[in-house]
Amino acid sequence: MKRHLFVACLSGAALLAVLAPALPGFAETEAPAAAPAVPYPDGFRQWQHVKTGLVTAQSPAFAVAGGFHHIYANGPALAGYASGNFADGAVIVFDRLAVEEGAGGTLKEGQRIVVDVMLRDAAKFAATGGWGFEEFAGSSTTQRNVGAKAKATCFNCHAKQKPDNFVVSKLRE
Amino acid sequence: MKRHLFVACLSGAALLAVLAPALPGFAETEAPAAAPAVPYPDGFRQWQHVKTGLVTAQSPAFAVAGGFHHIYANGPALAGYASGNFADGAVIVFDRLAVEEGAGGTLKEGQRIVVDVMLRDAAKFAATGGWGFEEFAGSSTTQRNVGAKAKATCFNCHAKQKPDNFVVSKLRE
Repeated sequence: MKRHLFVACLSGAALLAVLAPALPGFAETEAPAAAPAVPYPDGFRQWQHVKTGLVTAQSPAFAVAGGFHHIYANGPALAGYASGNFADGAVIVFDRLAVEEGAGGTLKEGQRIVVDVMLRDAAKFAATGGWGFEEFAGSSTTQRNVGAKAKATCFNCHAKQKPDNFVVSKLRE
Repeated sequence: MKRHLFVACLSGAALLAVLAPALPGFAETEAPAAAPAVPYPDGFRQWQHVKTGLVTAQSPAFAVAGGFHHIYANGPALAGYASGNFADGAVIVFDRLAVEEGAGGTLKEGQRIVVDVMLRDAAKFAATGGWGFEEFAGSSTTQRNVGAKAKATCFNCHAKQKPDNFVVSKLRE
């Protein structure tokens, strides 16, 4: 009786965690996601600004890349831009923001659309050129758009930059 | 004779420097510029990126402000964005770059046009709101466009931002 009451007080995920090991086949079909491979790049706005671009509504890429984008690099990534070799731990961020029309003929930054992240770990992400990829929605630090789809969503295009270690950008003067 | 030869070997500015003290009224009309008040902001590309805007060819301000502009702040200036008070030594840079058309519908950064600088020194620059202003041409660290014209060229417009300590920009999230 005591045991029954205990289970009844659990709800949602906690209840699943208690019951799942007893359900045949559960682990294969409903296993919780693995620990995040590419963490949110805390503090990236204090990292060095590498360069900026703007994808206008006239671009075929507008739906997936429209707006201002600013690229930021942490210390190991900056060393990589200089040397051509990116050490494990290098992180490059692509911060994408909506474009708003300001006073006559000016364009200004609007809301953040996504934060794209590349994290270097040559062994862990060997299947995608040694880089892990993730995209965080808006200004969320937890809502992930990519997850296990990194190869199709990110790497297949970065693969064209193999001579540059799969990094598209250059550090602007 | 020896003295005459010496003077004849000097030319241009050096000759003026030798002769000027002897010419009545020279100091008022042709005095050499004072030592630069606002130094070039060495290393500003490693400072925090505050925000970005783009002034298009459709803007009436295109001639004086056209292109991408990125604002960068040193440590004291960052503290000023947060507190609303800018301490002496705060420096804000407005890095202006040409816009180039990239692949269909994309805009990318071109050559640097100017580097504008605001340096906080409340006493030294009291006549212009406590800020010294300078503009460096292109990527030159020495070619100055403003000099003694700071009030007309820079401050008269910044004066509209008096409630914000004459700083136009805000630190983007």
